[in-house]
Amino acid sequence: MAGETLHVHFLGTAGALPTPQRNPSCIMVRRGSDTLLFDCGEGAQQQMMRVRTGFTVDAIFISHWHADHYLGIFGLLETMGFNGRRDPIRLYGPRRIYEMVSIIRQLNPGISFPIEAAELRDGEAILFDGYRVIPFATRHGCESYGFILEEDQRPGRFDREEAISLGVPPGPFFGRLQRGDSISILVDGEEMTITPDQVMGPARPGRKLVYTGDTRPLRIWPDAAYRADLLIHDATFDDAESARADEVFHSTAGMAGLAARDTGAERLALVHISSRYTQTATHIQDAKRHYQGEILFPNDCTMIEIPFKD
Amino acid sequence: MAGETLHVHFLGTAGALPTPQRNPSCIMVRRGSDTLLFDCGEGAQQQMMRVRTGFTVDAIFISHWHADHYLGIFGLLETMGFNGRRDPIRLYGPRRIYEMVSIIRQLNPGISFPIEAAELRDGEAILFDGYRVIPFATRHGCESYGFILEEDQRPGRFDREEAISLGVPPGPFFGRLQRGDSISILVDGEEMTITPDQVMGPARPGRKLVYTGDTRPLRIWPDAAYRADLLIHDATFDDAESARADEVFHSTAGMAGLAARDTGAERLALVHISSRYTQTATHIQDAKRHYQGEILFPNDCTMIEIPFKD
Repeated sequence: MAGETLHVHFLGTAGALPTPQRNPSCIMVRRGSDTLLFDCGEGAQQQMMRVRTGFTVDAIFISHWHADHYLGIFGLLETMGFNGRRDPIRLYGPRRIYEMVSIIRQLNPGISFPIEAAELRDGEAILFDGYRVIPFATRHGCESYGFILEEDQRPGRFDREEAISLGVPPGPFFGRLQRGDSISILVDGEEMTITPDQVMGPARPGRKLVYTGDTRPLRIWPDAAYRADLLIHDATFDDAESARADEVFHSTAGMAGLAARDTGAERLALVHISSRYTQTATHIQDAKRHYQGEILFPNDCTMIEIPFKD
Repeated sequence: MAGETLHVHFLGTAGALPTPQRNPSCIMVRRGSDTLLFDCGEGAQQQMMRVRTGFTVDAIFISHWHADHYLGIFGLLETMGFNGRRDPIRLYGPRRIYEMVSIIRQLNPGISFPIEAAELRDGEAILFDGYRVIPFATRHGCESYGFILEEDQRPGRFDREEAISLGVPPGPFFGRLQRGDSISILVDGEEMTITPDQVMGPARPGRKLVYTGDTRPLRIWPDAAYRADLLIHDATFDDAESARADEVFHSTAGMAGLAARDTGAERLALVHISSRYTQTATHIQDAKRHYQGEILFPNDCTMIEIPFKD
């Protein structure tokens, strides 16, 4: 199936505090030639060096203004400037985003590329070529957002046999029909119009990623969050610490499992792991209790591919 | 020889840009129970986790306001607050230090321990218990400082034989003389005063560290910088790039070697290594051409001990 590549790099998977093995929050999504960061914790630029992604980031989305989710911006933008970047960078975040830009300007006076900033608003999609990013409000005791990355619908399958049986000769006409154009052909000396819907199956959904940022379990999910190919969910604690999770506005692995089940996610990735945990078994057990899909517990620098379903 | 331990942890040895192996500038000095940081580049807190030093930092000295020398402060102070720190922290830096404190307060509104800040001034020593830190102006195209950490003089050696020959009985009197008190004893029925200088050798110098921060070779060194036990010198480039070093206000390894020779340093450590170098041979050769002492090329997380000379 043709289409853009879609990769997720888990650059930082730690909870509030980094550990020697885990950096604070940073998820890189690369779709085709686009690169997006969701959160940008301290040391993000060094993780990008480690996985050799380069620094051609197009946009950075900050879920909320806790230090472990954005302190890496300053060093990353400094390094972009040092490397001679001229392209603008787009920054999206909650209400303090413009204050942050002014701090960036104070700390990095040498940055000469444009910084374009915008406030996030619940449900207001940000459009990219072939996909959109939809922020949704989460429950973290401050203004906070999760993000849905949703690809545009793909055309349905081209029914080659049907086209031939209608009299369309194999060749350039096939391509025009697949691109959505109607065509005129002569069948038994008579001009006939063939429309794309005669030879194309129903449109197929694109791929979808959901990243919650930090949050207590959501009571209501936005419609667009259902049936994600990958749900990346706060799993700061295991279920034994669910009281603590409530208290500090986070989720447990079990709550993440419930969310994956309830939203019909294809895969679940557990992130924002508290530094108190040195092994992964209980998190995975807790999520498995509710969710039958594939559960990932990524280490820093893990990369996964998101394939098309059909 | 009794005395405080003195250790240097090279937490960040990279030049302007980190590499997968080297963090931006950060030198930790631990003397007895005191912990000082000289510069605090991005990721310093994670390096401290890696070498398990804890976060009981007493003071942070910033050599100059280039991003690779201080961006780690925000995350480090955030983590200190998260860990319940109540002790004040002392921050020293060039003129913008108060602006930095106000940015820290903006970025880390939850920090509840006191932040005590002061501007550095060329030659004005900052006193600690048993040692001092003396900032000295360097040549980096902006207000920039190096630092001399100089221990107080130690008392001379106690001459036990001489004390006994003067009639001092072994025991508590020995301790009082070593602590600098005069004593009265009866010798042949006559009261005699024995002063410390009769039984103690000349005072011996304490240990000394010099860290240059980023700088072109200094033309004149402060008197206090001579005869360091360890000179930690900017060696961003090897000698093949000396024109470039001049242009961007840095030093080469050869220039660092000359400085070590001219100031009579016991050992030389080469730091702030440009990301263009992946091996160490030319740096060491270039320094060796001028300097016969021990040359160190520390990796991140290298720790060395500074022994007493006598």
